[in-house]
Amino acid sequence: MADIELIPGGTLQTETPEEGRQLAMKLARMIIKATQPDADERTRQRAIYSTEPGMMIALGQTVAIEFSTIAAANNYWK
Amino acid sequence: MADIELIPGGTLQTETPEEGRQLAMKLARMIIKATQPDADERTRQRAIYSTEPGMMIALGQTVAIEFSTIAAANNYWK
Amino acid sequence: MADIELIPGGTLQTETPEEGRQLAMKLARMIIKATQPDADERTRQRAIYSTEPGMMIALGQTVAIEFSTIAAANNYWK
Amino acid sequence: MADIELIPGGTLQTETPEEGRQLAMKLARMIIKATQPDADERTRQRAIYSTEPGMMIALGQTVAIEFSTIAAANNYWK
Amino acid sequence: MADIELIPGGTLQTETPEEGRQLAMKLARMIIKATQPDADERTRQRAIYSTEPGMMIALGQTVAIEFSTIAAANNYWK
Amino acid sequence: MADIELIPGGTLQTETPEEGRQLAMKLARMIIKATQPDADERTRQRAIYSTEPGMMIALGQTVAIEFSTIAAANNYWK
Repeated sequence: MADIELIPGGTLQTETPEEGRQLAMKLARMIIKATQPDADERTRQRAIYSTEPGMMIALGQTVAIEFSTIAAANNYWK
Repeated sequence: MADIELIPGGTLQTETPEEGRQLAMKLARMIIKATQPDADERTRQRAIYSTEPGMMIALGQTVAIEFSTIAAANNYWK
Repeated sequence: MADIELIPGGTLQTETPEEGRQLAMKLARMIIKATQPDADERTRQRAIYSTEPGMMIALGQTVAIEFSTIAAANNYWK
Repeated sequence: MADIELIPGGTLQTETPEEGRQLAMKLARMIIKATQPDADERTRQRAIYSTEPGMMIALGQTVAIEFSTIAAANNYWK
Repeated sequence: MADIELIPGGTLQTETPEEGRQLAMKLARMIIKATQPDADERTRQRAIYSTEPGMMIALGQTVAIEFSTIAAANNYWK
Repeated sequence: MADIELIPGGTLQTETPEEGRQLAMKLARMIIKATQPDADERTRQRAIYSTEPGMMIALGQTVAIEFSTIAAANNYWK
């Protein structure tokens, strides 16, 4: 786990909501990377979940939760 | 991911709760689009999840989480 | 999506917690309606999920999340 | 839906955390009751989910979400 | 439900985060106990979910949600 | 449960968001450890969930929820 940067850039602060959304996707992805370090295996899994609507919806929930934290951290970019 | 606008309009602020709700649906959809860029494949998946009640309920959870963030960002339109 | 009112009444404000709860159920239902506009198909799905305890529990989660937003919007009716 | 009281007592305020917890369980149950008004069918479903650990865990999530709202409504009984 | 204490000790306040975490696990467990009062059946279910990674992960979500409420109730032990 | 430290270090406070993210992963892991104390069994389960995309996504949700609490506890490291 030590070798992987779980938060690219090391901060929850972003300039815009759009960048906050991109960060939410990255955070979700880095947890998967930290849990499954094998790149080929991750590629194999991506081929599965990206064609399974139930998994896609679940992935959407994960990103939504990550984003809620990032949005609060940025005071909703108000 | 760079080519897709994850937040249409680039802001979480909306005029009304109704527009906030529409934005929540769009946010959920854009994550799916960013993860699965193939439009035909997304159409295929939509035909599946829109006829599976369990997936429909899960989709409802995703939108509910997105909306909670948008509602907070708009101070609940109070 | 344009033709469906996602928030009946257009506001998150309700007089009572009971009405807030009713609104939470309506919000969850309108997302399903917006995603699956075919009334017969929705009726078919309702017959399925209303007899599947796992789906009923998942529906309860969706309503609980919607309600948490509505409750905050009403300052918990304090 | 009109005939069922979704929040027994009509308020989120409780005297104690323990009563808040009981209310959370009732809220979860009333959504199921409103969605499936047939008492015999609910009894049948209860026999299923109370012996399925995966469903029991999911039920726990629903109650946990309901409770988070009730706890906030009571300012955590501080 | 009346015979089971859903919150051991009757309060969300704890001295330390560690005790808060223990309370979160107890809260999750008491909901299962209140829903399934038969101790032998609970033991049977525990043997199932403790060997099913998907259920273990779902249990972790339940505890995480319970803990978020307890942490807020204790002002994050700051 | 008494023998396992559920929060390594005993605090939710971290120096950086990155360390907060690491703590979130540890919190999720300690719940699994407390529920399934057998190390060999946990290793067996890890081999399963780390190759199942649906479980990986669910794990991501758990970490996201834990992180939301840790982030709030640290006032989002602002």
